[in-house]
Amino acid sequence: MKLAVIPGDGIGPEVVAEGLKVLDGVVPGIETNSYDLGAARWHRTGELLPDSVLRELRAHDAILLGAVGDPTVPSGILERGLLLRLRFELDHHVNLRPARLYPGVPGPLAGEKAVDLVVLREGTEGPYAGNGGLLRKDTPQEIATEVSVNTYFGIERVVRDAFARAAARPRKHLTLVHKTNVLTHAGQLWSRVVEEVSMEYPDVSVSYEHVDAAMIHLVTDPARFDIIVTDNLFGDIITDLAAAVSGGIGLAASGNLDVSRTNPSMFEPVHGSAPDIAGSGTADPTATVLSVALLLDHVGMTDAARRVEAAVAFDLATRQAGSPGRTQAIGDRLAALASS
Amino acid sequence: MKLAVIPGDGIGPEVVAEGLKVLDGVVPGIETNSYDLGAARWHRTGELLPDSVLRELRAHDAILLGAVGDPTVPSGILERGLLLRLRFELDHHVNLRPARLYPGVPGPLAGEKAVDLVVLREGTEGPYAGNGGLLRKDTPQEIATEVSVNTYFGIERVVRDAFARAAARPRKHLTLVHKTNVLTHAGQLWSRVVEEVSMEYPDVSVSYEHVDAAMIHLVTDPARFDIIVTDNLFGDIITDLAAAVSGGIGLAASGNLDVSRTNPSMFEPVHGSAPDIAGSGTADPTATVLSVALLLDHVGMTDAARRVEAAVAFDLATRQAGSPGRTQAIGDRLAALASS
Ligand SMILES: CC(C)[C@H](C(=O)O)[C@@H](O)C(=O)O
Ligand SMILES: CC(C)[C@H](C(=O)O)[C@@H](O)C(=O)O
Repeated sequence: MKLAVIPGDGIGPEVVAEGLKVLDGVVPGIETNSYDLGAARWHRTGELLPDSVLRELRAHDAILLGAVGDPTVPSGILERGLLLRLRFELDHHVNLRPARLYPGVPGPLAGEKAVDLVVLREGTEGPYAGNGGLLRKDTPQEIATEVSVNTYFGIERVVRDAFARAAARPRKHLTLVHKTNVLTHAGQLWSRVVEEVSMEYPDVSVSYEHVDAAMIHLVTDPARFDIIVTDNLFGDIITDLAAAVSGGIGLAASGNLDVSRTNPSMFEPVHGSAPDIAGSGTADPTATVLSVALLLDHVGMTDAARRVEAAVAFDLATRQAGSPGRTQAIGDRLAALASS
Repeated sequence: MKLAVIPGDGIGPEVVAEGLKVLDGVVPGIETNSYDLGAARWHRTGELLPDSVLRELRAHDAILLGAVGDPTVPSGILERGLLLRLRFELDHHVNLRPARLYPGVPGPLAGEKAVDLVVLREGTEGPYAGNGGLLRKDTPQEIATEVSVNTYFGIERVVRDAFARAAARPRKHLTLVHKTNVLTHAGQLWSRVVEEVSMEYPDVSVSYEHVDAAMIHLVTDPARFDIIVTDNLFGDIITDLAAAVSGGIGLAASGNLDVSRTNPSMFEPVHGSAPDIAGSGTADPTATVLSVALLLDHVGMTDAARRVEAAVAFDLATRQAGSPGRTQAIGDRLAALASS
């Protein structure tokens, strides 16, 4: 296995170092190549993602990304030019985001409600298509559009993946989240695809929730969700709320998957580069370590994935809530637990 | 003042009756005309909103709506044909949705975080424009689009209203919520308008949050928000989460305002018709009563509005959480408190 690593900016390199430490503990000797991409490179050279780098990335089996961005880069530059470009160029059509409230982790909800769900967010179309425009810019008559583009092709592949994952879980329950009563065109198509694919999965129970109702239920009754499948923008919104109710963004892992395996999939913590704490040694690398577990799962090293997850679960149950220790100490503990 | 009333379906008529009871207690003798619109009428006659009814509604000073819908109406019919049609025809460009955790109300968040914010949701454009389409319907090549249409005209008027409201509040803080780093065209326009209007309000502090970050903060730190201004779809999502963290959808009031006062504004609880509990006498009319307070504010009867709000605050602080009593009993209590 050849792994490309994009440490990025801020706390990115710090958490990635710990992720690699844990990876090396469970699967020693993986070849890694590091790529300097992000705010720092853009400031230095004006480059976001040179074609030659993209070509090199393609020659790997997977990518581990820390976080990119800093407040001095105008909004949208790194997002559209690097992060989303990677997802689109590498056809990361399934954005996999589990949310689980681990024992011992203080959740924000009164009564400590159980959370154990996985969001499958479409990753290559919808409102993220970049298909918008401006008319009469900078005048009082300006009009701005954003076009959400939804294809049967694009929806079907993430819905298929969602059903396959639902079928493999004990509860076998899938919820489509959308806003079909207002976004009627896209809503119809999503509903049709879910209905069609559901025929092949008679064991999976299916329900539907409007995105606004899902907001309420994620707070009042998150245990109702098992697998959620949704579009790119709703998925962005839902996964941050799901992270919030399951112990915080510091624990949220994600995989940007090309499930056809034509291109390398990319794994990253959901959190950002947190420039305010960069260099202080206080970033929690747990989300990155959990992203490494998703990576191991994706490349078929499921035993190693389970060991990393078990290490995290044990550490979360025994670490002191609120003061989990310093970045490297957490990484050391997790590496030792996972490889023991 | 002439008030049009649309009781609607399910618990709609039950909660509206209590809202009118409280209204009559504080401002006796208002002329009301009731309009039969909703799922029941559609089933009976196929009509959603006849032009003649729309004309009659226009001749009122305000509209009070309960809730419409039942599970036997296909999704989208009542929403696009009645609810959204009313908002669009009557130019309800400012959707006003306060969220406040009243003393005595058990919130869902551990540690009982304070919530006292107002969302100003654009009401007549954005992704709700109904501007989408299908190509190659019912084939594996189907494509569905939804176009978010954002105009300077439309954004400016809700942003102006938001700043005026922020300036009148003690904290004078306004947050724009959007996803400017991905929806760059619409995001640019929203940001420009907020920046321009902010020049006229030097006392109002302004911040920006991505919609996904706002999800997290509504759960971990809702007290940071004072006034939120956002687009139609983000507003739909945010207001349900804001309702959830401030005691539930059963308390969430809303006003669909034409702030130019060309058309009657419409007031409604955020909750739906709840067919599962309709007729049982257990619906909580408090959200409708708080919507009546918004109505009184809008028509300039601010003393009466404050009395209704104070009645609700007192009742919430003293009622037994979890068993507030039956629909009519709550209405009786609130009417007595507000008019005493
Ligand atoms: C940074 C941004 C482009 C990204 C997104 O919107 O997808 C982030 O919020 C995420 O969820 O990974
Ligand atoms: C019923 C639906 C059309 C409506 C909306 O999406 O605006 C509702 O969710 C609301 O928030 O008032």
